[in-house]
Amino acid sequence: MKPIVRVCLTTALIPTFKVEEYIVVVVDILRATTTITVALDRGASVVRVVSSLAACRALKKEGYLIAAERGAQKVPGFDLGNSPQDFLRADLKGKKIALTTTNGTRALQKVKKARQVVAGAFTNISLLTSWLQKQETSVLILCAGWKDHINLEDTIFAGALASRLEGVFDIKDDATLLALSLYHQADSRKKYYLQHSAHFERLTQLGIQEDVKYCLRSDLHPVIPYLEGDCLVPLRAWDVERVS
Amino acid sequence: MKPIVRVCLTTALIPTFKVEEYIVVVVDILRATTTITVALDRGASVVRVVSSLAACRALKKEGYLIAAERGAQKVPGFDLGNSPQDFLRADLKGKKIALTTTNGTRALQKVKKARQVVAGAFTNISLLTSWLQKQETSVLILCAGWKDHINLEDTIFAGALASRLEGVFDIKDDATLLALSLYHQADSRKKYYLQHSAHFERLTQLGIQEDVKYCLRSDLHPVIPYLEGDCLVPLRAWDVERVS
Repeated sequence: MKPIVRVCLTTALIPTFKVEEYIVVVVDILRATTTITVALDRGASVVRVVSSLAACRALKKEGYLIAAERGAQKVPGFDLGNSPQDFLRADLKGKKIALTTTNGTRALQKVKKARQVVAGAFTNISLLTSWLQKQETSVLILCAGWKDHINLEDTIFAGALASRLEGVFDIKDDATLLALSLYHQADSRKKYYLQHSAHFERLTQLGIQEDVKYCLRSDLHPVIPYLEGDCLVPLRAWDVERVS
Repeated sequence: MKPIVRVCLTTALIPTFKVEEYIVVVVDILRATTTITVALDRGASVVRVVSSLAACRALKKEGYLIAAERGAQKVPGFDLGNSPQDFLRADLKGKKIALTTTNGTRALQKVKKARQVVAGAFTNISLLTSWLQKQETSVLILCAGWKDHINLEDTIFAGALASRLEGVFDIKDDATLLALSLYHQADSRKKYYLQHSAHFERLTQLGIQEDVKYCLRSDLHPVIPYLEGDCLVPLRAWDVERVS
């Protein structure tokens, strides 16, 4: 029997899945999981996922660069926000990063009981696809969403990834068919769809369109953020090849 | 400011909405809300929504016809199941019906605090659209789903109804855009999509394809099931006109 691929459309629906049966791919395209691929690809040794601002701030003393976003904006007093552009410009070589965000980090913390947890984004989609195809384990794509609500960008990504996995994996549930349908309709019109999404509008009002464009580009950062304890560590192309 | 229309893709997500701000349209296309339109259009005076089999059975003594479905099948010992075909054949004139089903009746019970609650299906979509357009109140379309999971048929209906309401209502959230996208893609290919849906497969295995075909036909039963306490009562075309 083939393994299956399923989609959970928002973190609020996680209690309806048995996460321990799956490799969970956490997705927060705008912007947490995209930013995490940038950080690890640019040389950060770990990205530690933290739920509160206070806990994040406390890690400064332990040598972490601290990064925090709330309501799509950088929190004053932190080294970094949640912008991939900021992470591109910073010197991250060998640095440990502590990150707290509105949705993505919360999603990562909700699935610690999964068989394995990785972060997915357009920026690492091809490497992620190759790695998942080698695991022979069912996959649950978890869209972080926006404050418990569904969003288009995460759902389009879920459809894009499910589409690449179809064949090696079986697709059996309607949420996955829904994501595939949106992806197929949005594929050539990704910008059109995203311009109508609620979070796109929020980010545009904040003047961070450049971030949005960056988050929609494929395979810029071929690294898989892999959860160990509270930390995401990089799996790179050569790790993926070695496993095969 | 225009009222808005939103979509809740499964009953499991109801806690993330303030239902008291909306008229809620409960949707369980296969088959509860379709069947309820049949019952009220064929002359039943009320459909009482009951959560347990025992509570439903107890109403037999009070003169109710009792109807029960679990796992898509009629429960032995009850007068009726959840099949629109059965309700078409039964003599319902002036009868009170007590109904308990896997998903639809549960969804109805979760939204009692809403401003108003009605049941929606393809079988009453045009009359429902007219009535909603006259209320000047925001609308939440609640897809009952299947045991907390999203299903295609309810989502396609949500998209169909949102599409008819757009213009008079504003659309601002991504779940509604997702339902609209699915509807536009599925419109001419409704059968194709439904044949791939998980619940369609379940019903087909049970040999009730005729029910499925019936549930996809538009405007066969121009009546709006309107929740008063625990009972759905019929609003008919002349009631809707009189309100205007």
